[in-house]
Amino acid sequence: MANTLTISSRNYSSWSLRGWLLAKFSGLPFEEIVMPVDDPAARAELLLLSPSILVPCLVHDGIKVWDTLAIAEYLNEVRPEAGLLPKDRKARAHCRAICGEMHSGFSSLRSALPMNLKAHFPGFKVWARAQSDIDRIVTIWRECLEEYGGPYLFGERSAADAMYAPVVTRFVTYDVQLDPDIVAYGERILALPEMQQWIAEAQKEVDEIDELDVEF
Amino acid sequence: MANTLTISSRNYSSWSLRGWLLAKFSGLPFEEIVMPVDDPAARAELLLLSPSILVPCLVHDGIKVWDTLAIAEYLNEVRPEAGLLPKDRKARAHCRAICGEMHSGFSSLRSALPMNLKAHFPGFKVWARAQSDIDRIVTIWRECLEEYGGPYLFGERSAADAMYAPVVTRFVTYDVQLDPDIVAYGERILALPEMQQWIAEAQKEVDEIDELDVEF
Repeated sequence: MANTLTISSRNYSSWSLRGWLLAKFSGLPFEEIVMPVDDPAARAELLLLSPSILVPCLVHDGIKVWDTLAIAEYLNEVRPEAGLLPKDRKARAHCRAICGEMHSGFSSLRSALPMNLKAHFPGFKVWARAQSDIDRIVTIWRECLEEYGGPYLFGERSAADAMYAPVVTRFVTYDVQLDPDIVAYGERILALPEMQQWIAEAQKEVDEIDELDVEF
Repeated sequence: MANTLTISSRNYSSWSLRGWLLAKFSGLPFEEIVMPVDDPAARAELLLLSPSILVPCLVHDGIKVWDTLAIAEYLNEVRPEAGLLPKDRKARAHCRAICGEMHSGFSSLRSALPMNLKAHFPGFKVWARAQSDIDRIVTIWRECLEEYGGPYLFGERSAADAMYAPVVTRFVTYDVQLDPDIVAYGERILALPEMQQWIAEAQKEVDEIDELDVEF
């Protein structure tokens, strides 16, 4: 029985990107199931209105795992050699804490700067509350890069890089002004072959959403 | 060096309750640090405006862990015998998935029915979107209770019961009408000695918040 990962829009669905990167980083072979973005359930997920039980959703060994953090923990258990979580206990706790922050927080950033890989808005005006989300993310990245020495948040590539990858694309899409160390981290993420593949496929995606009335 | 857990209002802070229950369930001895609710940082956390790096926050063995799910995973690692996560891989994935849903979702429920242990609103009118959150939670609980046989969500007490415990109190506070199996689960949670202790201490809490302008 093949492993599957259900995702939705490559262009718009940040949770799909996170789940897909985690699965790719884990090395687990999987088949993709892409929900059409005009599916009401997929649309509800994009609009942050429904629980993410549909997207992303991993099925492995007869076990269905939804929710991005649960997928990360599951993949870390079945593929420990992939290093999704740091080996050091303190670093692992730190990694989980910032993954958790991304998972439950930053709602202003998510609603004001939704992921949209095909778009580019030079000079985009960032609302104050979204700016405080951005400031917190910059602090998180800088603390990690300084503490673990880079090139990724916890040295080697980890679940945290997957969790924050959509933010990297938002910073580019919305022309967010950042310090060179933060720009350089973003460029390293965008240069990952998995990100290159995802972005190339997003560019080919037929756009079936006219507008995204994100609600909060 | 003593382990510490930083919490805020026992009456209002659902994340404090989750973190505290997780720590209690783990059996790890800890000292509490209670942030005053009129502290601007504590207030921002209550209003869902800031990342939860301050509350709840566990310090153990020189390691600082914030974010409730990260605390659950950390405690599960240092106290595996406490059974915060189910031993069976499939049940563990299920547990993490529903903990993740609680962690990142149900924003309508959280804003429309904020935790308030001292209050009781008979006949409270539940807004449609909050009702769909309630319906999803009932589905989650029922699937677990049927699959694992109760009395708690995964048979034995687990992190999932801690994650959903504030919801149990909201159902009572806001007089939410529920089927008998769901009421019975809630009663089992409220009867836990840890919950009894928390609620008793919440009743004694001096209320320093006049109103909670929860924003979304």
